[in-house]
Amino acid sequence: MTSEPIRLGVAGLGRAFVLMLPTFRADTRLRLTAAAAPRAASRTAFRGEFGGTTHADVGALCADPQVEAIYVATPHQMHADHVVAAAEAGKHVLVDKPLAVSLEDGARMVAACDRAGVHLIVGPSHSFDAPVQLARQIIASGEFGSLRMIQALNYTDFLYRPRRAEELRTDQGGGILFSQAVHQIDMVRLLAGGLGQRVSAMTGAWDAARPTEGAYSALLQFENGVFATLTYSGYAHFDSDIWMGNVGELGHDKDPAAYGTARRALSGADPASEATLKARRTYGGGESPAPPQHHEHFGPVIVACDRADLRLTPDGVEINGGTSRGFRAAPLHAAPRASVVDALWQALRHGQPPVQTGAWGLASLEVCHAILTSAATGQIVDLTRQIAAPTQKEEP
Amino acid sequence: MTSEPIRLGVAGLGRAFVLMLPTFRADTRLRLTAAAAPRAASRTAFRGEFGGTTHADVGALCADPQVEAIYVATPHQMHADHVVAAAEAGKHVLVDKPLAVSLEDGARMVAACDRAGVHLIVGPSHSFDAPVQLARQIIASGEFGSLRMIQALNYTDFLYRPRRAEELRTDQGGGILFSQAVHQIDMVRLLAGGLGQRVSAMTGAWDAARPTEGAYSALLQFENGVFATLTYSGYAHFDSDIWMGNVGELGHDKDPAAYGTARRALSGADPASEATLKARRTYGGGESPAPPQHHEHFGPVIVACDRADLRLTPDGVEINGGTSRGFRAAPLHAAPRASVVDALWQALRHGQPPVQTGAWGLASLEVCHAILTSAATGQIVDLTRQIAAPTQKEEP
Ligand SMILES: NC(=O)c1ccc[n+]([C@@H]2O[C@H](COP(=O)([O-])OP(=O)(O)OC[C@H]3O[C@@H](n4cnc5c(N)ncnc54)[C@H](O)[C@@H]3O)[C@@H](O)[C@H]2O)c1
Ligand SMILES: NC(=O)c1ccc[n+]([C@@H]2O[C@H](COP(=O)([O-])OP(=O)(O)OC[C@H]3O[C@@H](n4cnc5c(N)ncnc54)[C@H](O)[C@@H]3O)[C@@H](O)[C@H]2O)c1
Repeated sequence: MTSEPIRLGVAGLGRAFVLMLPTFRADTRLRLTAAAAPRAASRTAFRGEFGGTTHADVGALCADPQVEAIYVATPHQMHADHVVAAAEAGKHVLVDKPLAVSLEDGARMVAACDRAGVHLIVGPSHSFDAPVQLARQIIASGEFGSLRMIQALNYTDFLYRPRRAEELRTDQGGGILFSQAVHQIDMVRLLAGGLGQRVSAMTGAWDAARPTEGAYSALLQFENGVFATLTYSGYAHFDSDIWMGNVGELGHDKDPAAYGTARRALSGADPASEATLKARRTYGGGESPAPPQHHEHFGPVIVACDRADLRLTPDGVEINGGTSRGFRAAPLHAAPRASVVDALWQALRHGQPPVQTGAWGLASLEVCHAILTSAATGQIVDLTRQIAAPTQKEEP
Repeated sequence: MTSEPIRLGVAGLGRAFVLMLPTFRADTRLRLTAAAAPRAASRTAFRGEFGGTTHADVGALCADPQVEAIYVATPHQMHADHVVAAAEAGKHVLVDKPLAVSLEDGARMVAACDRAGVHLIVGPSHSFDAPVQLARQIIASGEFGSLRMIQALNYTDFLYRPRRAEELRTDQGGGILFSQAVHQIDMVRLLAGGLGQRVSAMTGAWDAARPTEGAYSALLQFENGVFATLTYSGYAHFDSDIWMGNVGELGHDKDPAAYGTARRALSGADPASEATLKARRTYGGGESPAPPQHHEHFGPVIVACDRADLRLTPDGVEINGGTSRGFRAAPLHAAPRASVVDALWQALRHGQPPVQTGAWGLASLEVCHAILTSAATGQIVDLTRQIAAPTQKEEP
């Protein structure tokens, strides 16, 4: 193995890629050598900024000998085909969350990467956020006794950000389950050790103009006895970032006066102009994220252990102990999302895959489906594809 | 019917009575004419302050012709006998929450009051809090469309306040289900219309020194399709009052530096000295609550409607609407808990009972048991004793 930068090809230069730009620009462990994108503007922008080769389709990207690993950042429903193509071409894969829409696709992707002997990492996701990682270390250290209960909640404007048509159709992976619940599930599974057991849940699809799930509540039980409450609403009303120090999901200070921006910006847009609005937020579309002042987060998370409740903040972990309240900072890295690059680097350069492998992502996806199934049937759903997070060696 | 003050007798001059003192002292619609208490110090204090008759036992209080209604504020497990005795003596009853410990006792109490033709009101409870009442009115007005989802959470130091021995034994009504969950359930049922349908829940009893439930998470579904997440921890770690503007349960501004007070005060106490500590907080024990600056509350509550999320605060209801965030104040009454006296007054003087009747309290108690049963069996529990909150006439 070498310690050369990882030669990364990118499939899909959309919103997800834009969100990774600060990382790609700052982290010298990666070199962007190629990209595949249907839009010429994105390809031109990529060549201009990174100087690599661009392709009109993912097949050509997979065949590109300059590419060692591929970051799949295409729409959910394309992940399966693009990941399998990459694996069959012998490329390692970083696929953005969710792994896939259907469990069958997910299993097919895991099998293809296993067969090809390539790494499959599902990320970025909020389980990579430094405060989540820090909380996981604190739990694993046993310093505050056993983990008992987790509460995660998030109230956002997700459903009113500009969307492609299929992002509003559940059967095509639209709605909050596949795009948002999967973050919360990934975080909670990581904190609880991974082995979910049973799910009871209700979902809501309350806006006829955006007829997909926009909210859910779930009770998730783990094999080790830990239980978790997960709640989410993407209906752009209450904004739980007020309980995160007015820091937004991406780690930026947020102006409370900007309340209602998403719905206002969208008002009057028909599906076509909405897709155009969304495209404006993709690479080469003009927007570029400013560096964040804090870590990313996915809403308030309270982790009850025997001797303390850990509260995740955008800066670290608040320790609500027996008789005093303390704080442990999670220092900002020079590049945001450095932990995603860490994962790729450890896997490709040291043979040590992260927790968030394909099989892990499949287990998180299973919980998304279980929430939908439980809500539809009114039954508790047993989980069968769960895997454990490897035990940790690190100190908090 | 007269408009004379209600001649109220009190059974039990303990902590609950102390919490009602500011109300009893300020609300002229009530006159405290008698009390029953086993401790001479409490009886002496009562005669000194209110000038009424005191009795050593509840039987004598029930026979007292000066008494028109009895406030039963004895320990949970005594509610049934004391309420039935009051009813059989023809007295109206205000019984502190929970109605009873067992559903059989609860049903017996409701039947006895029905038979005797006396009012049975279960309160005070946090469903009487003015912001909860205001939110109920806003929901009923339909101004923001249909109610969809409720999230209620509360993290307190309940389990580490000084306790009588039976308060730490679930089979005797100890633990957070009967003392705390019942508040949350009462509030959520009131907001959702009352007709719970199914419960899925997990509970935790994590401190071997206080071996009763100290935490739970529940998913509660209503007949009208509304669903609610209820979470509680009384383990004295995270304090969710930081999300209520640092206002405590009783409406007082709270010093964040007082973190850990409950556990510190208790440390080293054996069961006997702990009971003494608790007794110090009862009537005649020396403590007396200061007037609150805000309404009482029972932790953060978010109420999702079609066109706004309502967030309860200790001062009113925050309206998180489509494109703007507003606030509706619930004005402070001269006497705290005036709404409990309103309920008593309307029932006894105008023949209009409140929502919180015996049958209502039995329905809330059923949900407490359903949470315990669901946690014990791992099954969803169907509810069978639910009743609807009468539809409202008031305007918000
Ligand atoms: N982890 C995160 O923070 C995060 C944030 C946003 C999106 N995502 C994920 O990224 C994925 C993409 O979502 P998005 O919001 O960026 O959507 P998007 O529409 O903004 O981007 C998708 C891009 O893929 C391109 N594309 C479409 N078909 C292609 C093909 N055959 N070959 C190559 N490129 C193709 C589109 O032109 C577009 O630029 C989703 O799976 C989503 O869940 C993750
Ligand atoms: N709504 C509220 O805010 C609130 C707050 C505290 C307690 N409570 C309720 O009040 C009830 C009492 O709890 P507490 O915390 O006040 O307990 P406590 O021990 O402080 O008070 C109970 C009182 O009842 C007295 N008592 C015992 N046996 C009696 C008898 N046979 N006859 C007359 N008096 C008798 C005791 O001497 C004691 O003073 C419980 O049901 C509890 O749920 C309600």
